[in-house]
Amino acid sequence: MKLLRVHSDDGLRDAVLTDDGRVVTLAGEAGAFDPGRLRERAEAALADPEAVVAAYEDVRLAAPLRPGKIVCVGLNYADHAAEGGQEPPAEPILFLKTPDTVVGARDDVVIPRGSEKTDWEVELGVVIGARAAYLSSEAEALEVVAGYVLVNDVSERHFQLERGGQWDKGKNAATFCPLGPWIRTADQVPDPQAIRLGLDVNGDVLQDGTTANMIFGVAHLVHYISQFMTLYPGDVISTGTPAGVGAGQKPPRYLREGDVLRVWADGLGEQHSRLVAAGS
Amino acid sequence: MKLLRVHSDDGLRDAVLTDDGRVVTLAGEAGAFDPGRLRERAEAALADPEAVVAAYEDVRLAAPLRPGKIVCVGLNYADHAAEGGQEPPAEPILFLKTPDTVVGARDDVVIPRGSEKTDWEVELGVVIGARAAYLSSEAEALEVVAGYVLVNDVSERHFQLERGGQWDKGKNAATFCPLGPWIRTADQVPDPQAIRLGLDVNGDVLQDGTTANMIFGVAHLVHYISQFMTLYPGDVISTGTPAGVGAGQKPPRYLREGDVLRVWADGLGEQHSRLVAAGS
Repeated sequence: MKLLRVHSDDGLRDAVLTDDGRVVTLAGEAGAFDPGRLRERAEAALADPEAVVAAYEDVRLAAPLRPGKIVCVGLNYADHAAEGGQEPPAEPILFLKTPDTVVGARDDVVIPRGSEKTDWEVELGVVIGARAAYLSSEAEALEVVAGYVLVNDVSERHFQLERGGQWDKGKNAATFCPLGPWIRTADQVPDPQAIRLGLDVNGDVLQDGTTANMIFGVAHLVHYISQFMTLYPGDVISTGTPAGVGAGQKPPRYLREGDVLRVWADGLGEQHSRLVAAGS
Repeated sequence: MKLLRVHSDDGLRDAVLTDDGRVVTLAGEAGAFDPGRLRERAEAALADPEAVVAAYEDVRLAAPLRPGKIVCVGLNYADHAAEGGQEPPAEPILFLKTPDTVVGARDDVVIPRGSEKTDWEVELGVVIGARAAYLSSEAEALEVVAGYVLVNDVSERHFQLERGGQWDKGKNAATFCPLGPWIRTADQVPDPQAIRLGLDVNGDVLQDGTTANMIFGVAHLVHYISQFMTLYPGDVISTGTPAGVGAGQKPPRYLREGDVLRVWADGLGEQHSRLVAAGS
């Protein structure tokens, strides 16, 4: 099932995307993330001849959920670590994005004022479906995954690396987390370690990787993170990016006003993000 | 004005604490943080002879708000930097705590499973009252401050410093952010750089500092952070801790099951936190 959210004249609405490209709106308010209830509501909407239906191209896409927290994993592909001159980490590096950075898959991304090094990172996002603390195994970890979602972990490298410490400083500008277009439920993703994902800038293919090359896979990450913090339904884990970020180009290439990103992953859809300058 | 929240039989309720120790419950739901509306509701409740009133000692305290995000400042007192063998930073170090770590001022703090180095940090918290991005001056920064709140930035030092990178890993266990008891509105805090604050463990005075010794003061921090991320009403900035954390004791001293913390700041009340072991 592909679950998404759309802006309607009545506010935010949950919806489901059919295989033939129709967006069917679910009855009820778009509230806290509850995967079981969402599935029930989606099934009811799909069976309801009176449900509101629109073409995917025509809807105003929102992010498919408002995460409770966004836990990000750093340097989780060996080729990406290498392009930054880093050793692969011995255990996962964690940092955070705040939920207020989230925008939808067709929304603009704002280059922060004074930024010279706004960069991209296509990533597989893991949507948590059940409370999880101190998980005992990787098998148990996969049971709390509700689905998968495309993430662009937008990053300002000067803020992240050259302004006195802790990466969060370069990861949390407004609009720095395009999320979606949809959540693909876990039952439709038989192997999260076999997903191709990539990113173009103005049509130039700059990232084209596969989750097969993660250093720490999804099950390992969910299990690991649950030892340090409690995961709740609606939390998102963004699992790191493959090679090809702007800072890794020779010479480095960063985003400028007017650039257009196409961000994609097999089965998880595409984002189209236009870069705009911060307003006054 | 001292604004707080209490657990009632009808759920969470906003309340105001009077100078003579009465907690007066505000009409309406405890929702998103809106300082102007809160003040109106508090004034109405104080004038209402029918309002529900209880003694401060008798109420079940909740955290006084659910923050949107919690931006923390590292090594912001020279004496604390020195006790960790660190140079004072050239510009503020930022990291994040997630809002799901917040508990109230009389709630237990849970030692994570496997933790040997759970530590304390008394801090002045700044509650943001208005949206703020790219603030142009420190004067403008103070205008977006709604009030001040006591924070204990509980930290697991092994997770923070010895597990492969980025402090967030040791700052985000469940219950790691006791917040409150109340928000003191900014009009009642004429100088945020003249607040004494401290912490005892089982009656041993281990922190006793003053915000006069911050390296970067409140106005500087709010202005600075607004250049990297957008601040929203209900966000909290935790401004760093003075000397006296457990890791700085000789020999180091960490929290154990049964320990009791008393955390205080002038005008901002006291927290009493009992340390408990993580459940299974």
